Amino acid sequence: MQRYSHGELIVVLDTSDLDRAADFWTTVLGYHRDGYGGGAYLSLVPSGGQGVELLLQRTGDQKSDKNRVHLDLRTEDLDGEVARVEAAGGVRLTSEAIVEHGWRWHVLADPDGNELCVLQPPSS
Amino acid sequence: MQRYSHGELIVVLDTSDLDRAADFWTTVLGYHRDGYGGGAYLSLVPSGGQGVELLLQRTGDQKSDKNRVHLDLRTEDLDGEVARVEAAGGVRLTSEAIVEHGWRWHVLADPDGNELCVLQPPSS
Repeated sequence: MQRYSHGELIVVLDTSDLDRAADFWTTVLGYHRDGYGGGAYLSLVPSGGQGVELLLQRTGDQKSDKNRVHLDLRTEDLDGEVARVEAAGGVRLTSEAIVEHGWRWHVLADPDGNELCVLQPPSS
Repeated sequence: MQRYSHGELIVVLDTSDLDRAADFWTTVLGYHRDGYGGGAYLSLVPSGGQGVELLLQRTGDQKSDKNRVHLDLRTEDLDGEVARVEAAGGVRLTSEAIVEHGWRWHVLADPDGNELCVLQPPSS
């Protein structure tokens, strides 16, 4: 559970298929399913306890533009982590790593097309 | 810092105005600015230490559709929390609270139009 100053903070992510999204995100984040809530929702929480809840929300909305909110995964091993996310069902959108201010990253998409970035900081 | 199974997890939010977005989100979440990174980025972190980083990213992209990833704020005091978010610069998009499975919530938008929900759980 992630607290903010006045309550609990949750990241909500749209999907057309709760199970497919849950398979992907639990694998990528090391989270587990915390039960369905009301049919259209499925909560994913860190297996280790502390951490931000990811609430999957089933919608029929089609994705059109780039997401204006997305998740970043920072890692010490860019290539290894990109390969791991791809093996979980992610799709790599960048053919070459983007390099800026010493950061190196790839843009990927989850099975619904929601973008996520995998980044390696300059110091790694 | 929010860990996931293989690294660090960050929520990235697009904005056309880093300072305006930072004013809003630091007030709403009780976060503070952690310094600029590379000009187009501004990191916001929990003042209490543990918690997920919110990385603001300046873009010229126009918002068109509803965000497919958004933040939920769960509170024991729906009306009070909605008023607090509005006072920080949020815009309420729902005239009446939505009620479903005992949950009550309002949809609001940050100064860039990014949706966020303020929800009161059934048990409150």
